[in-house]
Amino acid sequence: MAAVQQSDAPLASTTDEKPISNIVIVIAMQTGGTTLLSINFELIEDPNSPFPEGVPWVRYHGKFKGLNLNLIWPGKDPSSGVDSVGTISSALVTYAAIQSFKPDLIINAGTAGGFKARGASVGDIFIASDCAFHDRRIPIPVFDLYGVGSRKAFETPNLVKELNLKVAKLSTGDSLDMTPQDESSITANDATVKDMEGAAVAYVADLLKVPAIFVKAVTDIIDGDKPTAEEFLQNLAAVTSALDLAVEQVINFIDGKCISEL
Amino acid sequence: MAAVQQSDAPLASTTDEKPISNIVIVIAMQTGGTTLLSINFELIEDPNSPFPEGVPWVRYHGKFKGLNLNLIWPGKDPSSGVDSVGTISSALVTYAAIQSFKPDLIINAGTAGGFKARGASVGDIFIASDCAFHDRRIPIPVFDLYGVGSRKAFETPNLVKELNLKVAKLSTGDSLDMTPQDESSITANDATVKDMEGAAVAYVADLLKVPAIFVKAVTDIIDGDKPTAEEFLQNLAAVTSALDLAVEQVINFIDGKCISEL
Repeated sequence: MAAVQQSDAPLASTTDEKPISNIVIVIAMQTGGTTLLSINFELIEDPNSPFPEGVPWVRYHGKFKGLNLNLIWPGKDPSSGVDSVGTISSALVTYAAIQSFKPDLIINAGTAGGFKARGASVGDIFIASDCAFHDRRIPIPVFDLYGVGSRKAFETPNLVKELNLKVAKLSTGDSLDMTPQDESSITANDATVKDMEGAAVAYVADLLKVPAIFVKAVTDIIDGDKPTAEEFLQNLAAVTSALDLAVEQVINFIDGKCISEL
Repeated sequence: MAAVQQSDAPLASTTDEKPISNIVIVIAMQTGGTTLLSINFELIEDPNSPFPEGVPWVRYHGKFKGLNLNLIWPGKDPSSGVDSVGTISSALVTYAAIQSFKPDLIINAGTAGGFKARGASVGDIFIASDCAFHDRRIPIPVFDLYGVGSRKAFETPNLVKELNLKVAKLSTGDSLDMTPQDESSITANDATVKDMEGAAVAYVADLLKVPAIFVKAVTDIIDGDKPTAEEFLQNLAAVTSALDLAVEQVINFIDGKCISEL
């Protein structure tokens, strides 16, 4: 017997019923040559990536259960040799990866600073409920809102419950340190975690209408007594392992599910 | 008689001998609906631009003498309705425009704040000799240099002499205002003009190996006594006209010339 199609059902729900198939994971830093993530999912580096000549962007890809995974790393900056962190690189790779791989979902995974006053500890894994910028101050009506660029991340109530993850707001800026102006913007953004990529990935994903989620692991406590750069470097390796584990759990949870089931 | 080819001549010079043909002009703001630039060059808006669905980016294009001109404007932000200013939008459109139009040269034209202590006045037109960021502070060795991202613009000694333009260093950040930390970074960058796009366009152009020049018109004096936002808005229309005229002169100068003749 043919299934009855409800004419008043929103069109989107039909599309949503398809299990998630293509995922793009955007990371900013690569710890130890190859990320644990690419090892654990047996992803292989694509020597003929679709990205143009000149860009240092690296694609690792592979199949994991029912999912096509594309792990995109902006790579080493050609001029300085360090990881291409920050909003511009992550916006560019997100754009290029959406164009090339038409993902059903984007996962932005990375490290973050956390505020202990708002409940963050080193090693915590957060899922962002919202992303905004804290270093784009344009004090002209409406331009001010554009600068802050606050957006809701795709909501994943089942995922955060199942994996017992913390949920909080994320604030993004291109500096590792924090000025008094940054701090007051972060407070205005009501953010518990601070990174250097999230809101840029959210911006591009929103433009191109791809759901995006944000998995952020706390490397340093911003309102603590240790200097940020020192604490960041000290905890980077251990926290990256915890982050990779969390992303692995997230991907295992996603496998076989539809967008609406997350 | 066949011309003698000097075997020790650099390969590049052969390529350079071709007159410039394709130009991409990246702007950030559109004053008054359509820019003067698109009117003066009789550029028409492309209703089928190669940019993906969802992005607000607008392409005006046309032929002017021996040149194919593509004027790219990041458009109105879909969420807030204001011009999509700043580094992320300008990096994205520069990337997408290079991919689509393979330009021989990029011209980033826009408004800027100027420091009177370093010789800037409202209405001045500057060609940037160098671009750098002033709001990407990453106090970890080498990452600090990546953050500042200082790059030389393509040098145009004949152009600046012929058109009698001022030459100075440009510093870029995503805020219209200036914090004490921004100010000390701008001083470290030795910048006379401050904008919200230049270094991002320079970064992408450098990655993709396209020569880029920067034409910046001063709308406000940063070290003056007027509030930046107010002075900016007050002078925007008049200074944009002066900017458009300068870009017109620049394009007239470029027509028929090779890259090496600029």
